[in-house]
Amino acid sequence: MLDKVLTHLDENIDKSLERLFSLLRFHSISTDPAYKDACRQAADWLVEDLKTIGFEASRRDTPGHPMVVGHHPGPSDDCLHVLFYGHYDVQPVDPLNLWNDDPFKPSLKERNGEKIICARGASDDKGQLMTFVEACRAFKKETGQLPVKVTVLFEGEEESGSPSLIPFLKANADELKADCMLVCDTPMWDANTPSVCIGLRGMLSQEVIVTGANRDLHSGGFGGAAANPLRILAKILAGLHDENSRVTLPGFYDGVEETPPQVLQSWNELSGSAQALLRPFGLSIPAGEKGRSILEQVWARPTAEINGISGGYAGEGFKTVIPSQASAKVSFRLVHKQDPEKIRQAFRNYVNSLIPADCTVTFKDHSAAPAIQLSPDSPFVEAAKDALTQEWEKSALLIAMGGSIPIVESFRSILGVESILVGFALADDGAHSPNEKYNLKSFHKGQRSWVRILETFANRRINDRNSCSSR
Amino acid sequence: MLDKVLTHLDENIDKSLERLFSLLRFHSISTDPAYKDACRQAADWLVEDLKTIGFEASRRDTPGHPMVVGHHPGPSDDCLHVLFYGHYDVQPVDPLNLWNDDPFKPSLKERNGEKIICARGASDDKGQLMTFVEACRAFKKETGQLPVKVTVLFEGEEESGSPSLIPFLKANADELKADCMLVCDTPMWDANTPSVCIGLRGMLSQEVIVTGANRDLHSGGFGGAAANPLRILAKILAGLHDENSRVTLPGFYDGVEETPPQVLQSWNELSGSAQALLRPFGLSIPAGEKGRSILEQVWARPTAEINGISGGYAGEGFKTVIPSQASAKVSFRLVHKQDPEKIRQAFRNYVNSLIPADCTVTFKDHSAAPAIQLSPDSPFVEAAKDALTQEWEKSALLIAMGGSIPIVESFRSILGVESILVGFALADDGAHSPNEKYNLKSFHKGQRSWVRILETFANRRINDRNSCSSR
Repeated sequence: MLDKVLTHLDENIDKSLERLFSLLRFHSISTDPAYKDACRQAADWLVEDLKTIGFEASRRDTPGHPMVVGHHPGPSDDCLHVLFYGHYDVQPVDPLNLWNDDPFKPSLKERNGEKIICARGASDDKGQLMTFVEACRAFKKETGQLPVKVTVLFEGEEESGSPSLIPFLKANADELKADCMLVCDTPMWDANTPSVCIGLRGMLSQEVIVTGANRDLHSGGFGGAAANPLRILAKILAGLHDENSRVTLPGFYDGVEETPPQVLQSWNELSGSAQALLRPFGLSIPAGEKGRSILEQVWARPTAEINGISGGYAGEGFKTVIPSQASAKVSFRLVHKQDPEKIRQAFRNYVNSLIPADCTVTFKDHSAAPAIQLSPDSPFVEAAKDALTQEWEKSALLIAMGGSIPIVESFRSILGVESILVGFALADDGAHSPNEKYNLKSFHKGQRSWVRILETFANRRINDRNSCSSR
Repeated sequence: MLDKVLTHLDENIDKSLERLFSLLRFHSISTDPAYKDACRQAADWLVEDLKTIGFEASRRDTPGHPMVVGHHPGPSDDCLHVLFYGHYDVQPVDPLNLWNDDPFKPSLKERNGEKIICARGASDDKGQLMTFVEACRAFKKETGQLPVKVTVLFEGEEESGSPSLIPFLKANADELKADCMLVCDTPMWDANTPSVCIGLRGMLSQEVIVTGANRDLHSGGFGGAAANPLRILAKILAGLHDENSRVTLPGFYDGVEETPPQVLQSWNELSGSAQALLRPFGLSIPAGEKGRSILEQVWARPTAEINGISGGYAGEGFKTVIPSQASAKVSFRLVHKQDPEKIRQAFRNYVNSLIPADCTVTFKDHSAAPAIQLSPDSPFVEAAKDALTQEWEKSALLIAMGGSIPIVESFRSILGVESILVGFALADDGAHSPNEKYNLKSFHKGQRSWVRILETFANRRINDRNSCSSR
């Protein structure tokens, strides 16, 4: 029976690709209000697609972009119930001039002998999300049912801080409770090595706007005399790290634990490819804390990053202006028990201490989520690992991840459900960058992987809710 | 006869205003190639207007925006010959949302009991330029001639570093040589106190572009590991000043002279209004070198200013990106004998020293001009001062200026002609800012001031070329 389902996927890859292309065509950029309609249309498309598989699906409006919720019964009432999470919104596409093609006109190309799906969201997260949907479709077509009870939840605000998620989870907790959550928004270790992610950094992001004079001034007439918000901002940002690239905020490292030596050891064994992490991007020198390996830097250490800056004249030519305002977006990746609220306060105190008395500063909150640590001993993790190892014919790794998926913490705290993070993205997919892509192999073997994972879950009868718990 | 000419100006202020409005309607933003046609149209308009006064005028094309040159004979062959310089190009208008009206739809408004001309370029420099043209027109109408021989040169690239000026001066040196150059691109000391400017800071401007990875990266996957050009840039910019706001580049202060005590003394006597310089803009604390008065900071001390910065995501919301590139525009105001070339090299060396081995930096030159110091004893300065004192019924001041007018040095070195800087702009005109304005009083009494200045020049028969020399 498993073979029939897998063969169905192999024979219908073109059709699944067509469906993915339809989804990729929506300009569902959640952070920009101009694309509100496009987000709603993407949600509606997903609802209709889920219905064709037999899901009872609906668009659920929120104050922001809508959720999509779908329910499909399992083979029996007491069978395992999984909640699958993905997001249909995508990152902005600027700088647009760096794209080789229209980001919303998906295409299949060949690069280095590998077929790749090119579009914004191909990898993050529309392509990943559809691997699961296609797995469900194949089960339904070939067996008339799904091996477990499945609820899907697709969000439209993941790339803009998920403002509606927590209220939605709270309001619909009974409907969404499940034995285990599956999340497909993470990468593989490399193109041939599947992995289950058991550690995720948290994030605190802040926008800082420094205001000096009440209007732009001519730097000829006022240069040297008037406070320059750009200079103040540069000082703030430059002071965030010391000469060893440690973050300078008081108390920043409170709650950060040293990674156990045996874990560091296993990461060091990966170090050949770890250094190779930077090579595709033309870099070679790890920029994080001195004395720590690159994998430790991205998987187990907190950071401060500047994600955007603006102020003054940045167009062609030159304008001798002292701008009235300058702003920066700063994010902190958090690990272990670092407290986002305490770090927010430490950051604001630090910034305030550098603002001259005749200038002002305002802050905007974007997101605040602690780090996540999942149990490597969970039977769900074990089952997923075994299924992935079968599909890829290579032992699946337990990895950590530098990125944040704040929703994992929300699901744990609100629904009491633990997440299993399995994804098929690759480091060179260009998520958040121009020319984002998703390997056709990831899309195809991702579908097959979910079939094996769901089948393994069903066979092992893991339906004790407590077995999917955090360490 | 003088009275007749002045009365003509009084009676025709409305018509002169109409002409200025016509000129203000051209979108002559020189720094942005999109406005190339608008610059040419503004030049053509000036040519036609000069012809109506009897100038032999023509548009002179350059590789950039055109020059306008006009010649008008004086009353005799051996009379004084003045060259008047102004510029018809204007600064960019962004941020456009801060303007109360369309910057290119000029209007006359009333503010605090004062009539003001509102438009981009109203003060810098279309309004100032037209004060001289209207003075010539009135002479011609009432007397049939001009009191001295006049050549006018209007440039269209002053706001973008004057790239075509030096080649043009060299190619047309014989045609443009005169006994004295008049420049109307400077402010008055205050709304009631006329002034002749005898010191101008020079300028070196540089654009710095830092490149890290060959594409934008996700700060989740790479934060901490990949070099962030924004962080490198912040460090570069923050290190330009020490804690006393002195510029840190090695050798930066070579050639900077201490201002003579008696000059400092005279500036200190103006200090009541000097502190008031910042108040209209909501500031109160001089941001320049510790221990120096605000007037010394802007008139006699060099600076480093950040004029613009960009990199990463600066739109609505948040994008967790490590950008591939970040850039900044930096300008240095120079005084006395500071050498722009040496400072350019010191700046580049400093920047290069902060670029990690796996990142790169590129530089763009924008302008480089040493400071200017004019002789307070020149008979032209004396004559202008006396004429201004008569018109404004208040003793004209000899002032210095924080801004740069690099062309003054070019005229001195290429044509051997010294400049007299007289202008009627005010500190609150908002040159280079949103809602630029020019007081109607400046426009009207500016016209009258030029009539008196030309008349005084003619009466005193100052036509020994050597009498207009630098100290």
